[in-house]
Amino acid sequence: MERKILSDCLAAVRETRPLVHSITNYVTVHDVANMILASGASPVMSDEPGDVAGIVSISGALNINIGTLNTRSIEAMHIAAGKAAETAKPILLDPVGAGATPLRTSTALGIAGKYPLSVIRGNISEILSLASGSGKTQGVDACVQDAVNGGNLAEKAAFAKKFAGDFGTVVAISGAIDLVANKDVCYAVYNGVAMMGAITGSGCMLSGLMAAFLAANPSRPLEAALSSAVMMGIAGEKALGRMLEGEGNATYSNRLVDAVGLLGGDDLVKDARYEIV
Amino acid sequence: MERKILSDCLAAVRETRPLVHSITNYVTVHDVANMILASGASPVMSDEPGDVAGIVSISGALNINIGTLNTRSIEAMHIAAGKAAETAKPILLDPVGAGATPLRTSTALGIAGKYPLSVIRGNISEILSLASGSGKTQGVDACVQDAVNGGNLAEKAAFAKKFAGDFGTVVAISGAIDLVANKDVCYAVYNGVAMMGAITGSGCMLSGLMAAFLAANPSRPLEAALSSAVMMGIAGEKALGRMLEGEGNATYSNRLVDAVGLLGGDDLVKDARYEIV
Amino acid sequence: MERKILSDCLAAVRETRPLVHSITNYVTVHDVANMILASGASPVMSDEPGDVAGIVSISGALNINIGTLNTRSIEAMHIAAGKAAETAKPILLDPVGAGATPLRTSTALGIAGKYPLSVIRGNISEILSLASGSGKTQGVDACVQDAVNGGNLAEKAAFAKKFAGDFGTVVAISGAIDLVANKDVCYAVYNGVAMMGAITGSGCMLSGLMAAFLAANPSRPLEAALSSAVMMGIAGEKALGRMLEGEGNATYSNRLVDAVGLLGGDDLVKDARYEIV
Repeated sequence: MERKILSDCLAAVRETRPLVHSITNYVTVHDVANMILASGASPVMSDEPGDVAGIVSISGALNINIGTLNTRSIEAMHIAAGKAAETAKPILLDPVGAGATPLRTSTALGIAGKYPLSVIRGNISEILSLASGSGKTQGVDACVQDAVNGGNLAEKAAFAKKFAGDFGTVVAISGAIDLVANKDVCYAVYNGVAMMGAITGSGCMLSGLMAAFLAANPSRPLEAALSSAVMMGIAGEKALGRMLEGEGNATYSNRLVDAVGLLGGDDLVKDARYEIV
Repeated sequence: MERKILSDCLAAVRETRPLVHSITNYVTVHDVANMILASGASPVMSDEPGDVAGIVSISGALNINIGTLNTRSIEAMHIAAGKAAETAKPILLDPVGAGATPLRTSTALGIAGKYPLSVIRGNISEILSLASGSGKTQGVDACVQDAVNGGNLAEKAAFAKKFAGDFGTVVAISGAIDLVANKDVCYAVYNGVAMMGAITGSGCMLSGLMAAFLAANPSRPLEAALSSAVMMGIAGEKALGRMLEGEGNATYSNRLVDAVGLLGGDDLVKDARYEIV
Repeated sequence: MERKILSDCLAAVRETRPLVHSITNYVTVHDVANMILASGASPVMSDEPGDVAGIVSISGALNINIGTLNTRSIEAMHIAAGKAAETAKPILLDPVGAGATPLRTSTALGIAGKYPLSVIRGNISEILSLASGSGKTQGVDACVQDAVNGGNLAEKAAFAKKFAGDFGTVVAISGAIDLVANKDVCYAVYNGVAMMGAITGSGCMLSGLMAAFLAANPSRPLEAALSSAVMMGIAGEKALGRMLEGEGNATYSNRLVDAVGLLGGDDLVKDARYEIV
């Protein structure tokens, strides 16, 4: 893949300014909204079963995040996903905490098994939980022993491609090294910094950003997922470089969103660090 | 109207420190709370039907925002509005996304048709949707073709006054130029900057700020709405002037709230840019 | 108590990095999550009755905050508290707005009366409301006439110890002077600044921080509560010292979280200002 695809995917977001519908958790929803705005797209949130079909109808993509799921929002997720499938809108699933509780695992699997997803994005624990249909995870954070690293990259890449094939989707596995794969190819993305793990919502924000890229690039989900993962990682690096003395994680979170808004396509092409693995 | 009314309305907020009850969306609720605090008032949020009447009883105004409405919160909105009407507390309605889905339009119209509102505040698409009882809007953002601008100011002002008369309320239409009108007079407010559209929640924050002004100035809703719209616009200008290199929309959002807290009545009188149209 | 206990309690948080389950309001939940991360612990939020028992099972403490309670979340609070009691996990209750409405008072009393709580943390109005089983409070802010000050310290300390004995818990009463007491001893904490009252969520953030300390120090709730109250107060002082011209309450809120992340155990020992009263 030409690196220029990164700037092409971003340009599509900024030119078309798609509306992105998120059914997401109330912990990080504000950051998700500002992240989508920083990308150049426009956010809308709705999780009422009687409202979501109408919102999907006017949106370019659907971002489903189960971080603070409840019975009402689960019903809304299904209605929204059904409408998105019917109208051929890209759907991204962020299975927050899958593996931590039966409800989270079964909800994520229920959605993944029923609707055509463009991307599933989560940490390695969550993705492993979906793969095994069970699994254990420490809340919303990845278990260290499962982390993708230089030593197990080939093995994890094979797993990602198999997962993508089994689920009929692109998969994005976030961590110190991100993996973005479909059944045929797996990219490892090296952009990003450890500080991104010290804030709440870096995963949720990436899902929002990725959904914006999907909305603007519906026919190339692998490229959209890769581009947004690269953009998030570069933004994390830029934000870290802008931290001043006396600043910590709350300010970093804002600087991360800020950085996405300030990045241009040329920055992505220049600073991206990824390879096929 | 004397410009001194702007500082008088703000002084009333800072002297009486009213409690403002918001039933609002979970995307921007945190900003709304800090905005109300920055104004000098005190925020309280509650959307449980069994809780809201008690909260209205101790509050000075009710701010209803349908941004992430659900069946439970809609029930709460009606109970709260009924109690506010009964106890003569000002009610502000922010019909977020009216026109985007039938549920949003009908919920907003249902509230507007049943309770005495002091102010309806929204963007031009939302207000047009209420006016026509239908309409189309791209999510929560105003359609460009409907925007208030120098060329259609007289026409939009006539619409605003007619809307205010029909709905028996003050109407505040936010955009590059804000309109604030009752049935007899319409103000155009020129304060504000485009950057306010690059963050989530600038409209919701203004609704919270306006509700604080209404709580402290219940007998003069037009002046309260005008003063708060002016204050928000000036704050947006000040915040933009304080942006540093490497900062973007997330930081701007905080600087906007900060700026409201730092503004005094004299600043409003000095920097306000508005006229009767 | 040796001042070194302050750094010991913090060290336990940073070494064990416990998972803290919060059922909390959607106004300040994002700050609570980042505050817990700043402390060194890991946050997870869930308020669905069908999900919370599983989340409690993998967590080190449960933080219950009734700020935006609803019938669903109240049910979840009971299920989670029951599971926490069964598995001997520390429970903290933040009775936001107790005394403001019957539902808030009865919900807080219902939880306090049924499960073994490690800490109840609130402002003086809320605590007085629980003590009397009724009471009046202006929303979520303490009534001035009830505030702890130099002149009524002995009286308030006696009240705090009696409350702690009656409820079988540690109590933390937040204000210009914080009180932290069990039935036998009461500490007055002098750290903190008035600016902490100009932001939304300083109380909720302290509850999250305290729950993190409880998770890491389950056998010494008094010390955990004292240490976290001291840490929050010192962070408030540091944050104020870092405010730049043009910054206000929204930025201060972020600086407060930032400051917690930057504090070390030595800072607590050095800057703590408290005494037994």
